[in-house]
Amino acid sequence: MDSANESGLESRMKSRAAVAFAAGKPLEIVEIDVAEPRAGEVLVKISHTGVCHTDAFTLSGADPEGVFPAVLGHEGGGVVVAVGEGVTSVVPGDHVIPLYTPECGECEFCRSGKTNLCQKIRATQGKGLMPDGTTRFSYRGEPVYHYMGTSTFSEYTVVAEISLAKINPQAPLEKVCLLGCGVTTGIGAVHNTAKVQPGNTVAVFGLGGIGLAVIQGARQAKAGRIIGIDLNSAKFDLARQMGATDCVNPADHDKPIQDVIVELTNGGVDFSFECIGNVKVMRAALECCHKGWGESVIIGVAGAGQEISTRPFQLVTGRVWRGSAFGGVKGRSQLPGMVEEAMRGEIALDPFITHTLPLERINEAFDLMHEGKSIRTVIHF
Amino acid sequence: MDSANESGLESRMKSRAAVAFAAGKPLEIVEIDVAEPRAGEVLVKISHTGVCHTDAFTLSGADPEGVFPAVLGHEGGGVVVAVGEGVTSVVPGDHVIPLYTPECGECEFCRSGKTNLCQKIRATQGKGLMPDGTTRFSYRGEPVYHYMGTSTFSEYTVVAEISLAKINPQAPLEKVCLLGCGVTTGIGAVHNTAKVQPGNTVAVFGLGGIGLAVIQGARQAKAGRIIGIDLNSAKFDLARQMGATDCVNPADHDKPIQDVIVELTNGGVDFSFECIGNVKVMRAALECCHKGWGESVIIGVAGAGQEISTRPFQLVTGRVWRGSAFGGVKGRSQLPGMVEEAMRGEIALDPFITHTLPLERINEAFDLMHEGKSIRTVIHF
Repeated sequence: MDSANESGLESRMKSRAAVAFAAGKPLEIVEIDVAEPRAGEVLVKISHTGVCHTDAFTLSGADPEGVFPAVLGHEGGGVVVAVGEGVTSVVPGDHVIPLYTPECGECEFCRSGKTNLCQKIRATQGKGLMPDGTTRFSYRGEPVYHYMGTSTFSEYTVVAEISLAKINPQAPLEKVCLLGCGVTTGIGAVHNTAKVQPGNTVAVFGLGGIGLAVIQGARQAKAGRIIGIDLNSAKFDLARQMGATDCVNPADHDKPIQDVIVELTNGGVDFSFECIGNVKVMRAALECCHKGWGESVIIGVAGAGQEISTRPFQLVTGRVWRGSAFGGVKGRSQLPGMVEEAMRGEIALDPFITHTLPLERINEAFDLMHEGKSIRTVIHF
Repeated sequence: MDSANESGLESRMKSRAAVAFAAGKPLEIVEIDVAEPRAGEVLVKISHTGVCHTDAFTLSGADPEGVFPAVLGHEGGGVVVAVGEGVTSVVPGDHVIPLYTPECGECEFCRSGKTNLCQKIRATQGKGLMPDGTTRFSYRGEPVYHYMGTSTFSEYTVVAEISLAKINPQAPLEKVCLLGCGVTTGIGAVHNTAKVQPGNTVAVFGLGGIGLAVIQGARQAKAGRIIGIDLNSAKFDLARQMGATDCVNPADHDKPIQDVIVELTNGGVDFSFECIGNVKVMRAALECCHKGWGESVIIGVAGAGQEISTRPFQLVTGRVWRGSAFGGVKGRSQLPGMVEEAMRGEIALDPFITHTLPLERINEAFDLMHEGKSIRTVIHF
């Protein structure tokens, strides 16, 4: 890899990283070794990364695909340092957002025009490996695994070229890194999956980062009524600021929340979004939809083995049950435009960033999240 | 009701009917009294009616909405005898198909453009009553209830004007009566609910009347591959005649049928249809859909209280779960055109009619159905 050698890459191959050595243990800040990018791969210097519930889910050991030791992190932003053989879409110096949902443009899924779920490197990504079946990370000579094809909890990371969205270099990476997961997931689900139309009534279950992003997307789509639902009423102020027209706390009602919403909306909502990962809430979200046409979108990730259920009559009478991953967004095609929207203020990112911490304090970000005190903590390197 | 009196209606107000006096008992052929149609109602002389699984479901006592005694039947064809005050869309002599899914054109549902589930008379229809909350049927002075707004197991029936599709008087009622339920339900689900496109791969679970209609609809839509699935391989010949390209018997395989179909189709089907009413099959139908875009449509009616379930990951990775009632068909708008299609041979009805019996032998139709020996028995009066 000439370009890397010429730029003195070898000296930069030591990388500070927060490594998950085992499930259920705090991350450890250590210096790992990062190998040069191989064909079709790119070395990225991460400047900022968010800490997301999915990282915590994997760290907890509940993720059946979780492998250890690994460099977690999937909501980052950075700058290209070096590229492997055959890489043409980015050059050193480009600003990028790593994509856990890649976009090869060539596989059956990319060409279908119906989904963002590129499967080109799915098999290896799910095992914590680069597409060639090996890892670029090591610690004291032992392999360390990748995570979601991104591993943004490392100062330097290696990702597949197809897993990078090249963005406007003027964009503030400390903010637009959030478009690498949560904010895009929520906003994208509104536009790409549900296709909310002006005047529609929308219910949003869970007012964390994803839920707030859904509210923002629904406001962009000119939804007529946006109902935020959460067991923590302290979240209602921010939800209203971002566009919620009504906020409902299920604890304030004696009947099932779906019945409350159906009554409140005189028949149910046009679209609902589950932004928690709770299978019981997923059912409520479906059942609060309007007979005949209401559609519910599952965004939250449920625990392994958990199942959703309902009476089939709910579907036979016209409700539709869907799901959304990364908001249905094709990262390389669509994310650059969303970054521009954020730069123009059409997507607000500031309200999501409740905390900023250096890498060394990343475990505090997990604590804040578990305690419900943060929406997003952004880590800087 | 002058027109009725002038035409000597009173003498025809005695009607031979198959009455369900109690759940779980055979129907009894008796002479009931049929009152004149009131405002917005129409008296129809039924010439033919199919016997459908839903009639058997209600007769069994499993239908939570079932009321007795009642005149069942919802798949009929007949001729208008008299109209009540204010009825403008039909006149005596018009040929009609009664609609258990009415179309008022005025309610929120009809105006939505998104559903065929007109709710104008839903509340009373579900209770076995005419829209004014009373019944037109009686036996020995005691009220007999209506059923699904149609009650086609009576020589004379009274239905709401909005529950009648006026059809070409040249159409053979002994055949097009089947468009009152099963055939329309299956074909409509393909076109209106799933919107199958040319080249799509389709799986059809259950090769009874509905399943065969789905196959026919899929062939009309130029589906590239139509896979019929049934535990009774004796049904495969007819399925192939109607358009199935592959037939699969789950009993011939050691693994779950969804895995068999995913393998057979190299990733799953574009659309699947559940035509049985079995919640386990509903799950299989969803899970055999292609990741990223496959959609499953529930047509079958499950037993009271039964629930569908799956892992939410199935939806998050792009599958969609829907349902369909009466094939999403707006009866007054669309059924006349489907009758024309049948007359032109574009919808084949003959293969569905395996038996024809006079009203007096209607209980044999239920026996044939329970024994799996019939697709449809058409009853003539």
